[in-house]
Amino acid sequence: MQQISTLTDDLLYQQVAGHIEQMIEKGVLRAGEKIPSVRSISRQQGVSMSTAFQAYFLLESKGLIESRPRSGFFVRLVNKDLPPQPNRTNPPLIAKNVNIDEMVAEVFEAARHPDIVALGAACPSPTILPVNKLNRLTIAIIRDYGERALEYEFPPGNELLRRRIAQRSFTWGGNLSANDIVITSGCMDALNLCLRAVAKPGDTIVLESPTYYGILQTIQSLGMRALEIATTPNEGLCLDALEKALNNNEVKACLAVTNFNNPLGSCMPTENKKRLVEMLGKRNIPLIEDDLYGELYFGSTRPQNAKAFDKKGLVLLCSSFSKSLAPGYRVGWTAPGKFKTKVERLKSMTTIATSSLPQMIIAEFLKDSSYERHLNQLRKAFCEQIQAAMKAICKYFPQGTKVTRPTGGFVLWVELPKQVNALELHYRALEKKISITPGPLFSATRKYNNFIRISCGNPWSKEIEAAMVELGKLAKG
Amino acid sequence: MQQISTLTDDLLYQQVAGHIEQMIEKGVLRAGEKIPSVRSISRQQGVSMSTAFQAYFLLESKGLIESRPRSGFFVRLVNKDLPPQPNRTNPPLIAKNVNIDEMVAEVFEAARHPDIVALGAACPSPTILPVNKLNRLTIAIIRDYGERALEYEFPPGNELLRRRIAQRSFTWGGNLSANDIVITSGCMDALNLCLRAVAKPGDTIVLESPTYYGILQTIQSLGMRALEIATTPNEGLCLDALEKALNNNEVKACLAVTNFNNPLGSCMPTENKKRLVEMLGKRNIPLIEDDLYGELYFGSTRPQNAKAFDKKGLVLLCSSFSKSLAPGYRVGWTAPGKFKTKVERLKSMTTIATSSLPQMIIAEFLKDSSYERHLNQLRKAFCEQIQAAMKAICKYFPQGTKVTRPTGGFVLWVELPKQVNALELHYRALEKKISITPGPLFSATRKYNNFIRISCGNPWSKEIEAAMVELGKLAKG
Repeated sequence: MQQISTLTDDLLYQQVAGHIEQMIEKGVLRAGEKIPSVRSISRQQGVSMSTAFQAYFLLESKGLIESRPRSGFFVRLVNKDLPPQPNRTNPPLIAKNVNIDEMVAEVFEAARHPDIVALGAACPSPTILPVNKLNRLTIAIIRDYGERALEYEFPPGNELLRRRIAQRSFTWGGNLSANDIVITSGCMDALNLCLRAVAKPGDTIVLESPTYYGILQTIQSLGMRALEIATTPNEGLCLDALEKALNNNEVKACLAVTNFNNPLGSCMPTENKKRLVEMLGKRNIPLIEDDLYGELYFGSTRPQNAKAFDKKGLVLLCSSFSKSLAPGYRVGWTAPGKFKTKVERLKSMTTIATSSLPQMIIAEFLKDSSYERHLNQLRKAFCEQIQAAMKAICKYFPQGTKVTRPTGGFVLWVELPKQVNALELHYRALEKKISITPGPLFSATRKYNNFIRISCGNPWSKEIEAAMVELGKLAKG
Repeated sequence: MQQISTLTDDLLYQQVAGHIEQMIEKGVLRAGEKIPSVRSISRQQGVSMSTAFQAYFLLESKGLIESRPRSGFFVRLVNKDLPPQPNRTNPPLIAKNVNIDEMVAEVFEAARHPDIVALGAACPSPTILPVNKLNRLTIAIIRDYGERALEYEFPPGNELLRRRIAQRSFTWGGNLSANDIVITSGCMDALNLCLRAVAKPGDTIVLESPTYYGILQTIQSLGMRALEIATTPNEGLCLDALEKALNNNEVKACLAVTNFNNPLGSCMPTENKKRLVEMLGKRNIPLIEDDLYGELYFGSTRPQNAKAFDKKGLVLLCSSFSKSLAPGYRVGWTAPGKFKTKVERLKSMTTIATSSLPQMIIAEFLKDSSYERHLNQLRKAFCEQIQAAMKAICKYFPQGTKVTRPTGGFVLWVELPKQVNALELHYRALEKKISITPGPLFSATRKYNNFIRISCGNPWSKEIEAAMVELGKLAKG
């Protein structure tokens, strides 16, 4: 970067900003990467700190960079050159008995080869998880409290862990205490218990279309009915469509993945979350809010949860540490509002308790700033992986492909040209040792035949690049 | 013991036996204790090894001692002087909707004081569990395979663990392979998944009366109906009563705790297990066999499982390591016969997987003879604890009290005089900081009002002795 300190002060910051913009455009600084600190730019360019700040604020206002608390400024994903996003979905407004079980089982049994390029399951790679730190903590806990690991940790679960989860609730606008929380064996356990606490077999549950097949399977296994609601890739649940559904159906509960829905990546705007809680509250309908991905935001602040607006105890917030820390620990939690006693009892009846040792390890990990530091790294990694996958889709996939622009999480929802059959593509990809998740799994209505979900849980590699080339070829037919 | 070697040979062994019998009667050698080895008796008494063996065989045939493989001879519990056993139960032959949830919750919430003398929950004390060995293994595993602890162990679960569970199946007459087994989050998880795999809400399940309240709660939470079958304290399920029930009702499944039923302590004779499997098999009715306590036998050999006679894949065997190794690990398993795929899928939908690390630790513990050695110690401890409790009941409880004689497990089922109200006794005992489990929890039919369950999971102590004195006083009114 050339010396530009000879210019007058009010032009200076624009000049500095312009240079950085060029570096971003040329790909010298890439999306998700940290840009030089204000201090180093000021030294390097011989400009004052305040000029450097002004330059960064200008870039921020243009949407090119973003500040992250205590981390500095980062390059944002620039959307030009990417294919368009899929349209708003349009599911039929009829409650359906779910029947995707066989399909899901078949897809995942087929994808269990050990040497596969895994773009299917939404798993974070262990290489980006804090394995060493967790191992050190485990050994320390075993030495100090080994006996406790053998004892039951009866519901609501480990008190220290509950307190630390409650402490974090201020980040999403909540105000929980340890007493509001029940520890579960992962988020699916939480969703199961909450669904059983608020609804019975035969009852209708409204949810996003598309949504995670595990949720649909749970609804199927509990003999409930799924009424799918239209969504947009940016904002998730369409509230007008939801209102219509509520007016015309006897709905027992709403289950929504409000932040970074899997597979859509959508994030409901705060005002929509507020309206959602009001809309349901007026009708006394519980909202099961799945916030599994809420911590994995790419922007500067954590999105709020609908639970923040819950005055009636009707929101059952569910989450876990499976996507951010340790999938194999199977530790999740729920803050089920006024259904807490019911959820707690159901927990006692199904698994008695969640495994004690993993609860103790996570409580310890959450003690200091380690978790937040780890999350910052993880967010950056997922953001980069998502962007690399987007670029590959842009480069290798057939014309007419559409792709979402998630601002968090680590999955992409890809709409292929109409003639592509995603289930068939899945089987043909498997022959080439590549796993993807075909779209029809994400709906009870057998839609999304030409959609696939690409999971970006693994650091980008030559193998993944080659797999994307291959997928593109297969999709072109 | 005087020298008796001058007697003629065929009288000698009777003489030796007579002396040992006296020592048992006088309480010099107590039930559960090891008696001197054949070698040391032979040396001590100046008799041949074969004479000593003959003496021991005589005592064994009289039911006074028993041999344990590789451990020697032990004094058996002598039943004289103990109060009689409760009679055969007589539940009404009507399928009931279960409604014990509130009562169970109330009893257990009340009993959660930290400084209580715990005769309530059926938990083994950590002091008789292999804490140090498990801790050492955990540290070794974390050092060698730490990363794997973070990864999912998708159903059917850890392969090594499944193989080692399968290897142990020969001890109960089974012939399982790793592929027959699904790892679960404890035995209750296994029972839940199996019930859901074979029956639907509204369906009728036959089971023992009395039976474990957790099973009744699960049936309640799944909206199924319980049809309770008569039992006897020695043999458990009365097969004639079961046959009648099967002839007069549409039964969807049978759930039986075949070995050391909780609370009865009953153990079905092998021929009854065989007949049970045939009786159900003829009608194509699945048997969910809960074998949670099967390893905790006091006799010389492990009782067989009904699963050993399963030719049609209709027996779903369930168990766990919660009563024998580590309650807090939450690791159980099921061998669900022909329902395996269904159980595996339900497992995926409810908790995705069982926590990985506890599975790895138990697999390692089962590698060598450690588990069997630990079980031998545990069996001895439970046997002694049960006997101490029996004696205390005999000594302190009101006349007319009856008590079971379990040959395994660690709970006693106590019938108090008719006028004693067990729920009231429970609340009055709680005021004295003693927890027990009142009888009405063990039935959907609100029977057993004058019964209590005493758990003997803790080593006998002055505190427990004092609690039994207090309980006796309270029961006398």
